[in-house]
Amino acid sequence: MMIARVIGNVWATRKEENLNGLKLLIVQPIDSNNQPIRHELVVADRIGAGVDDEVLVTSGGSTRYIFASTPLPIDAVVIGIIDSKEVRGE
Amino acid sequence: MMIARVIGNVWATRKEENLNGLKLLIVQPIDSNNQPIRHELVVADRIGAGVDDEVLVTSGGSTRYIFASTPLPIDAVVIGIIDSKEVRGE
Amino acid sequence: MMIARVIGNVWATRKEENLNGLKLLIVQPIDSNNQPIRHELVVADRIGAGVDDEVLVTSGGSTRYIFASTPLPIDAVVIGIIDSKEVRGE
Amino acid sequence: MMIARVIGNVWATRKEENLNGLKLLIVQPIDSNNQPIRHELVVADRIGAGVDDEVLVTSGGSTRYIFASTPLPIDAVVIGIIDSKEVRGE
Amino acid sequence: MMIARVIGNVWATRKEENLNGLKLLIVQPIDSNNQPIRHELVVADRIGAGVDDEVLVTSGGSTRYIFASTPLPIDAVVIGIIDSKEVRGE
Repeated sequence: MMIARVIGNVWATRKEENLNGLKLLIVQPIDSNNQPIRHELVVADRIGAGVDDEVLVTSGGSTRYIFASTPLPIDAVVIGIIDSKEVRGE
Repeated sequence: MMIARVIGNVWATRKEENLNGLKLLIVQPIDSNNQPIRHELVVADRIGAGVDDEVLVTSGGSTRYIFASTPLPIDAVVIGIIDSKEVRGE
Repeated sequence: MMIARVIGNVWATRKEENLNGLKLLIVQPIDSNNQPIRHELVVADRIGAGVDDEVLVTSGGSTRYIFASTPLPIDAVVIGIIDSKEVRGE
Repeated sequence: MMIARVIGNVWATRKEENLNGLKLLIVQPIDSNNQPIRHELVVADRIGAGVDDEVLVTSGGSTRYIFASTPLPIDAVVIGIIDSKEVRGE
Repeated sequence: MMIARVIGNVWATRKEENLNGLKLLIVQPIDSNNQPIRHELVVADRIGAGVDDEVLVTSGGSTRYIFASTPLPIDAVVIGIIDSKEVRGE
C-alpha cells in the first residue's frame, strides 16, 4: 500500500455507469518524511477523506471488489485515514 | 487511476478476435497541472472520448471484465471523460 | 496496453510444461514518435508477429487466459500487429 | 517478491472494516547489498516482523487471499522474515 | 516477462506455511545486451535454476497458481531457463 496526501477532487459526468456516486480524489504519494514520491494518481473513496488528509491507498486488482460484488473498473482506493506513523530514529 | 490526455488513435487489423470493434486510443498521462508524467499508453474506449479530451484511465486486471463477461486481453481502459478537477491552493 | 517493436526471439527448452509451443519474442516499447520508452520485455505471441513488426502488447493478469482455459504463467502477450497510428499535430 | 527493511509502523482508526486488527508496517525495499531501491511502501504483517527486520514482501493481486477467504483490499504483505541471503562473488 | 540473471539465494525460516519447500532466488533483470535493467527481485523456482543461469521470469497475479490449486502469496516465478536469444542486427 502507499501513504498519500489528498490534494484535490476530479469530476466526470460521462463515465462507466457502475461508477456513479463514487467519490474520486487526486492524491500525491508521500514517504515517511512527507516528501512526494512516485506520481499523482486518482483514487476512489468511501471512507470520507478530504483535502490535506493523509490516507492509506491500495492499488491494483485487489481494489475492484471493495464497493460491490461485481468487479468495478477501478485500480486504486482509499482503505484508511492515517492517525499517525512512527519511523525508527525519529 | 490516472488522468490522461487523448493524443491519437491506433489501428490493428490482425488482432485477437474478441477485440474486433474496440476503439484504441493513444493517451499521455498528465498531473493536476496538466504536465506529462509516466509514459504514453494505449487504452480501450467505449465512452466516446476523442483527441484532446481529458480522460480517467483504469489499468491492470480490473479492466478485463468491462466489455464482456469473458475476460478480454486488455490492461487499460477509459472509465470517464473529465469535466473538471480542483486542486488545493488553486 | 503498450506499442512495442519486435527486436528478437528467445528460446528456453527447460520451461513450464504448459508453455511448450509458445513463441516468445523480445520487444522494445516505443512511444508515438517511435522513441524507446520503459525497458525491453519478453512477450508471448500467437498472432505471428516477426522482427521489426510494431505490435500492441497487453501486460499483467489479463494475459493469463488468452491461450487456454487454465491460467498460464505469463504476464505479457501480443494482442495485435499495428497497421497505423495517428497522433494530433502530425 | 522484494527484500525490504522494516522502518516503522502506521496506524489508521478510520479504515475498511475487514482490515481491523491487521498490523501495518512501513518498509524500505533494499537490494542484496542492503542499498535502498524503489520507494517506501506499507505492508500488512501477520508473521510478527518488527522494526529493523529484513523481510520478504509479495505485492499485487496475489496478496488479497492471504488473511481470509474473501479478498481483502490490500496489495502488499510480509510472507517471511529473512534469515540469510547469499550473492555470488561474496 | 523479463530476462534475468540468477545472482543468489535467500532463506526465511519464519514464513507463510504454504511456502515451505519453495526455493527462493535473487535475480537481476537484464536486457538483450546483458546489461542490468530495473531492480533486483526475489523469485520462486521449481525448474532448478542456479546462480549465473539466465532465466525467464513472470511477475504479478499470473504466478500464484503455478505451484498449487490454491493461490500462493507470491508475485514472481521462474518459468524457464534460457538456451539462447537472438536480437536483430547481431
